Amino acid sequence: MFIIFIVSMQKIYEGKTKIVYTTSEPDKVLIKFKDSITALDGKKCDTLPGKGKINASISAKLFELLKRHGVDNHYIKFVEPDALLVKRLDMLKLEVVCRNYAAGHFASRFPMIKEGAKLKRSVIEFYYKSDELGDPLLADDHVVALEIANEEEIQYMKRTTRKVNEILQNFFEERGLRLVDFKVEYGRLKDGNLLLGDELNADCMRLRGIKDDKIYDKDVYRKGGSLSDVLNTYKALYDLVSS
Amino acid sequence: MFIIFIVSMQKIYEGKTKIVYTTSEPDKVLIKFKDSITALDGKKCDTLPGKGKINASISAKLFELLKRHGVDNHYIKFVEPDALLVKRLDMLKLEVVCRNYAAGHFASRFPMIKEGAKLKRSVIEFYYKSDELGDPLLADDHVVALEIANEEEIQYMKRTTRKVNEILQNFFEERGLRLVDFKVEYGRLKDGNLLLGDELNADCMRLRGIKDDKIYDKDVYRKGGSLSDVLNTYKALYDLVSS
Repeated sequence: MFIIFIVSMQKIYEGKTKIVYTTSEPDKVLIKFKDSITALDGKKCDTLPGKGKINASISAKLFELLKRHGVDNHYIKFVEPDALLVKRLDMLKLEVVCRNYAAGHFASRFPMIKEGAKLKRSVIEFYYKSDELGDPLLADDHVVALEIANEEEIQYMKRTTRKVNEILQNFFEERGLRLVDFKVEYGRLKDGNLLLGDELNADCMRLRGIKDDKIYDKDVYRKGGSLSDVLNTYKALYDLVSS
Repeated sequence: MFIIFIVSMQKIYEGKTKIVYTTSEPDKVLIKFKDSITALDGKKCDTLPGKGKINASISAKLFELLKRHGVDNHYIKFVEPDALLVKRLDMLKLEVVCRNYAAGHFASRFPMIKEGAKLKRSVIEFYYKSDELGDPLLADDHVVALEIANEEEIQYMKRTTRKVNEILQNFFEERGLRLVDFKVEYGRLKDGNLLLGDELNADCMRLRGIKDDKIYDKDVYRKGGSLSDVLNTYKALYDLVSS
């Protein structure tokens, strides 16, 4: 079965951490997770042997979890050792960020809210994906004006992202982790309808130990941790997600 | 009658272009418009004799217009020569911007939309009023997280600002002008309800001649026009609004 994919595979897209290939079926693509890790808009970059497999596995687990809880998404199946077979989507140039605690950009943008403080209500933000423009924050009406999505679709993405947040918060809380924030992306199916896509792993969320505040995500790398510390962090998250 | 105000007047607030005084009635304040004009976050500043009177008069006319069209606001009456008697509001630290055409910050933020282009739909933006933080753009959820307003109040401000936009667009179109964008501010009455406040004049909107694209607002000053050109611009708008 896997042979069929390989024979017909053509690279559609290669990013910093993923490669997307066509498959024998036009409405399905294969996302292969690379072993590279990047931060600071790509200025910092390393190879972490085994990271691709870990991130693909965690993404598979979490997309399956969301499906079981009624949140439809692009995931079809895990393809050993480091890839996902997914529904083909035309991705929006949009990052949808959900925050439960003040961290990262939010903390630097609003210094009057202490870093690490729990937000009164989870916050949803839209960022325009553009390296050239520095991924600017968007108001809802900007999403419409830039013709990325209409008002109804904005509400669908907000609603869906809040539901993802609830499901992930519960899942991680049961494993002793606090979900600080995460990023998701949406794309369009051939019929134009939106669907949750992309990935879900330590590259696109912040997780902290509830008891010890230990970091379980890419912040270990961002903050200058050694590559073995970073790999151990990814492995620790993999073990927790698999438990 | 005016004597009574003066006797009991105490300065509550002085900004770059306005001074707010108490009156003999605790729920009413007097907004006096100064002759100063500023740009580039106060880095550029001049005195324009007669500007205060013009801006107070135009604000009075436009707030009256909004009231006639069912948009409640703080305006009570014009007080000769350069002040408005208004309902006292506790102002939100929020600028609500409405844009019909790409200009200013919007044009520099999204260079792929040509400066001057008509937007597919008018855009509403919230900015946090903080000189220290450089008045950052806010997502709707930031307004809630910063405890400035709740979700329902955000929708009220968006709805009201769109109505203001429609009324002003029609008013200026009848006078040969295109409303490019404008800024409004809201505040809370003693009972906590929101009400439209602040000012409405050439300092807080962009207006262009429909036929000749002539500038009828503070952009003449921002773009380095002579003070007599600037004053003539404000006078020309005053004449048009009074007609």
